[in-house]
Amino acid sequence: MEKVNVAIVGATGAVGTKILEKLLERNFPVQSIKLLASKRSAGTEITAGGHTYVVEETVPESFEGISIAFFSAGGTISEKFAHEAVTRGAIVIDNTSAFRMKEQIPLVVPEVNADALNGKAGIIANPNCSTIQMVTALQPIREKFGLKRIVVSTYQAVSGAGSEAIDELESQSLQFQERATIQAAILPSASAEHHYPIAFNVIPQIDSFDSSGYTLEELKMMNETKKIFGDNELSVVATCVRLPVVTGHSESVYIEIGKEGVSVEDIQALLAVAPGVVIQDDPSKQLYPMPLFAEGKDEVFVGRIRKDPDHPAGFHLWIVSDNLLKGAALNSVQIAERLVNFIQ
Amino acid sequence: MEKVNVAIVGATGAVGTKILEKLLERNFPVQSIKLLASKRSAGTEITAGGHTYVVEETVPESFEGISIAFFSAGGTISEKFAHEAVTRGAIVIDNTSAFRMKEQIPLVVPEVNADALNGKAGIIANPNCSTIQMVTALQPIREKFGLKRIVVSTYQAVSGAGSEAIDELESQSLQFQERATIQAAILPSASAEHHYPIAFNVIPQIDSFDSSGYTLEELKMMNETKKIFGDNELSVVATCVRLPVVTGHSESVYIEIGKEGVSVEDIQALLAVAPGVVIQDDPSKQLYPMPLFAEGKDEVFVGRIRKDPDHPAGFHLWIVSDNLLKGAALNSVQIAERLVNFIQ
Repeated sequence: MEKVNVAIVGATGAVGTKILEKLLERNFPVQSIKLLASKRSAGTEITAGGHTYVVEETVPESFEGISIAFFSAGGTISEKFAHEAVTRGAIVIDNTSAFRMKEQIPLVVPEVNADALNGKAGIIANPNCSTIQMVTALQPIREKFGLKRIVVSTYQAVSGAGSEAIDELESQSLQFQERATIQAAILPSASAEHHYPIAFNVIPQIDSFDSSGYTLEELKMMNETKKIFGDNELSVVATCVRLPVVTGHSESVYIEIGKEGVSVEDIQALLAVAPGVVIQDDPSKQLYPMPLFAEGKDEVFVGRIRKDPDHPAGFHLWIVSDNLLKGAALNSVQIAERLVNFIQ
Repeated sequence: MEKVNVAIVGATGAVGTKILEKLLERNFPVQSIKLLASKRSAGTEITAGGHTYVVEETVPESFEGISIAFFSAGGTISEKFAHEAVTRGAIVIDNTSAFRMKEQIPLVVPEVNADALNGKAGIIANPNCSTIQMVTALQPIREKFGLKRIVVSTYQAVSGAGSEAIDELESQSLQFQERATIQAAILPSASAEHHYPIAFNVIPQIDSFDSSGYTLEELKMMNETKKIFGDNELSVVATCVRLPVVTGHSESVYIEIGKEGVSVEDIQALLAVAPGVVIQDDPSKQLYPMPLFAEGKDEVFVGRIRKDPDHPAGFHLWIVSDNLLKGAALNSVQIAERLVNFIQ
């Protein structure tokens, strides 16, 4: 297999550093890795896999000779540089929401719709973190029994809002303990007009609001899920909520499948052999997924599988995954692996 | 109005102390208040409203001459002493799950089914905290448009598991900051075989598991809601989750009502005049309920009201309330007010 020249835009961020880690850990066939970031971060040294990389400022010429460019520096940067990279021959794997819903852009979770990559060049979009873990867990169920409806409520970690949000949760937790004034400047989002404490609190807002009353995060889950599954008849509604958890998104997912008479054991049997999925589901042993134990792990964890006693095709699932890994960095690297036909 | 002799069983607990506070704050017409607890707590002095009460051990004779006895010391104590109190002429308002689903026992949220109290003596059951706030918010909608279906996911505070759970959250938060070993001995419940950290984590287990895979907390929400609404055709499914929040339960509630063509504004107009309910719902001002701001307040706060774009009768609501007040102590005192015909 030919080795490739790779660039990571946003290399100093929470997701960018994980992309580098995953490329090295998974022995992705790299010829060279170029770390790119803002002018402010240029010159920063990052050591990984026994090699020290010097971060460079992102400019159009950065992408000369690059085959695969990972973008994870916010939508504005992707809009500014993704086409520059493509013009210079790179395939862009974009972690922002800039291109996800554009019709001609594939939106890919390899376990679900790797075939959307076939023959595609240009920009490939990596879905939203909360969408990825949900569709990964639901795909085997959908494939076997069909899927009519999803009602999801999320329990999302602050690392999804970047490393500043992690710092804010930590400093607020200290302020609470010292009975000091709580300083809130980042969450629900840095650009929001009002900021609220996240420590010992729950904020039912992620990203900004649409005129429909839904947040953009909720609309991402609703729209991206339909696109990834290629099913506009599927009903998907979401409520997205931020919690005082550092890393690991949890989701309470209610589904109606396309068949009656299916048992919890049938669902468990499907998920037991599903790629990227680990079942943690044994009430008698108090076994169920929790974010604290999913942090740093690649898999999507599923538990609390229950049948709706009032609806013959209704089931609950509790789905947890590391939002920085399968929800972002890992999924991007898995897309790259498919592109270069490198399957571990 | 005649003044009454009141007893509070479990007076030193998280809910018991709030019952005393609410009785005094709301000028409930008391002749005397007797504070009862375990032998261990007997002799404890509690000062409230300028008066110092000495806690006594609960024995059958404690209820001689008592007209209303509040029970909030766990199911076992209620099973042991509630009938003793009734035998001696008291009406028992029970905060535990001991009698809630017994057919002849009224299960009451005054805003919803106060008429269930008519002519009743003996034991009156106070519903589960997470049930109370949900039915209070849904009652006006149900009354006007009908209610077919509820899918609820909860975000519950640790104070629902007692003051030991609050202490555990606080000490674990410190242990995290000091990078010390996390000590978990209380949650998900003191009697559980396995205990998990709650600080910076999410535990999808409240109370123990039933053979169906649902937890008792989830079954409480499902069964109590049907009983309070007097509607066994109503479909209710719940996922109950514990969070690192001290006080204030939040709920992501999806409903299907009995009528199509209803707007978000129609729902808001109903809730705006609903007793015990406050709407906090203006996305343009980032106004929505959060537990940190509901703590210490009597009302049930409702926001994030949205229409399901894929279902003509589907709506989301985000419902938050202080689980120790409307979820427990306040609702009990409101039941007592109805019993003695004392309406503020």
